[in-house]
Amino acid sequence: MKVLAIDTSNHPMSVALVEDDQLLATTTLNMVRNHSIYLMPTIDRLCQLVKWQPSDLDRVVVAQGPGSYTGIRIAATTAKVLADTLGIDLVGVSSLEVVAYNVLPTTTAIIVPLFDARRGNVFAGAYQWQDGQLKNQIADQHLAMKDLLTQLAKIEQPVILVGHMTKKIADQFEKLPDNVTLAPRAYGIPSTYQLALAGEKRPAVKEIDPFVPHYLRITEAEANWQKLHPGVTRKNYVREV
Amino acid sequence: MKVLAIDTSNHPMSVALVEDDQLLATTTLNMVRNHSIYLMPTIDRLCQLVKWQPSDLDRVVVAQGPGSYTGIRIAATTAKVLADTLGIDLVGVSSLEVVAYNVLPTTTAIIVPLFDARRGNVFAGAYQWQDGQLKNQIADQHLAMKDLLTQLAKIEQPVILVGHMTKKIADQFEKLPDNVTLAPRAYGIPSTYQLALAGEKRPAVKEIDPFVPHYLRITEAEANWQKLHPGVTRKNYVREV
Repeated sequence: MKVLAIDTSNHPMSVALVEDDQLLATTTLNMVRNHSIYLMPTIDRLCQLVKWQPSDLDRVVVAQGPGSYTGIRIAATTAKVLADTLGIDLVGVSSLEVVAYNVLPTTTAIIVPLFDARRGNVFAGAYQWQDGQLKNQIADQHLAMKDLLTQLAKIEQPVILVGHMTKKIADQFEKLPDNVTLAPRAYGIPSTYQLALAGEKRPAVKEIDPFVPHYLRITEAEANWQKLHPGVTRKNYVREV
Repeated sequence: MKVLAIDTSNHPMSVALVEDDQLLATTTLNMVRNHSIYLMPTIDRLCQLVKWQPSDLDRVVVAQGPGSYTGIRIAATTAKVLADTLGIDLVGVSSLEVVAYNVLPTTTAIIVPLFDARRGNVFAGAYQWQDGQLKNQIADQHLAMKDLLTQLAKIEQPVILVGHMTKKIADQFEKLPDNVTLAPRAYGIPSTYQLALAGEKRPAVKEIDPFVPHYLRITEAEANWQKLHPGVTRKNYVREV
């Protein structure tokens, strides 16, 4: 199976071409958050190197969020357009889960990938390796860093935090709970090779059009609208992709 | 510090540009073992993306072997030429150590990276995280897979084997010792981001010219010569880069 995997959820932009369980080529750019400019040329260049035509692809696997609004829309939209026009499978995998794969299955600890969601908040979920499979233990959520640490302190097991601990998140707490260890920053870079491997095994989405990113929070525009219109619920203020 | 890191020790060819502790761009190609064709264009392209001139580089960090003869010569030669012509630092890091970094410092296990060295032999070393630093515990060596497993079975600690367990190596044994766990193949791909981070902190080589790869074995030509000339020692039958 020939897989294109893409992740533009956060600061790193990553693309991989994977055939069955073998990585063929991957590029990660992390110098600017300008993924809309670099994504298609990167896909194109890697396909040229590997000598794949777009029509050779069997499946597109995309990191579906959470993450930056604009970021997850770029990957999701690109993946949908490619899957639709090429008539191939589309699979979404949690962007947090992708980072959790950086921790080897030799650990029994709870793995908590996290992304800075600004304003002292983070996106985080909890995962654990069981019989060689990475299982979700606590659903991906959007919450205050302080609340996350309160939750993690209650877990009676070692916890590995993995992600980029920005200064703004680190400022939210004095020290980590005793059972929580922060992995060095280098382990917070998502691997689209791992993303492809995760997405190869899953059923593809049945319909491409309704596929949307996992935002896990409303946009600022929606939040402002709600403040101005208390008590009124309005769906799709901003259409989700 | 602006660092170029390169690794062509084995099947994957990987290049990264790293500034201080931040990854800027990285590409790994794993589709053919034709690193001499792809290495310089990949370095050039990543430098263009990051908008670095060659003269901006402060340091070249190279995976110094062990690995494929031709592979480690390509990276070592390229690194030496760049360091010499640009007048910048050159640092070598064990190619096995680079793979060991894929295992997080949250583990206390002995980490044993390995590469297939053909004929039932492997290159392997033993590493362990101590106080956030990856320490070498058993020097990188070239040995029979069977002998490696005999050594590892005697270690009274959990061991994580990390690398690409080819069929030819796996055929050398029936099962792994009870204390040894094989990490999935995806964790055997070297990260030149980690290579750069390791090489940033080390003293540069004093002289570039005598820098040679760590072959850890003699070439086939040397072995054949020795068979034909028993008892005669001859150094540098093949000049080492």
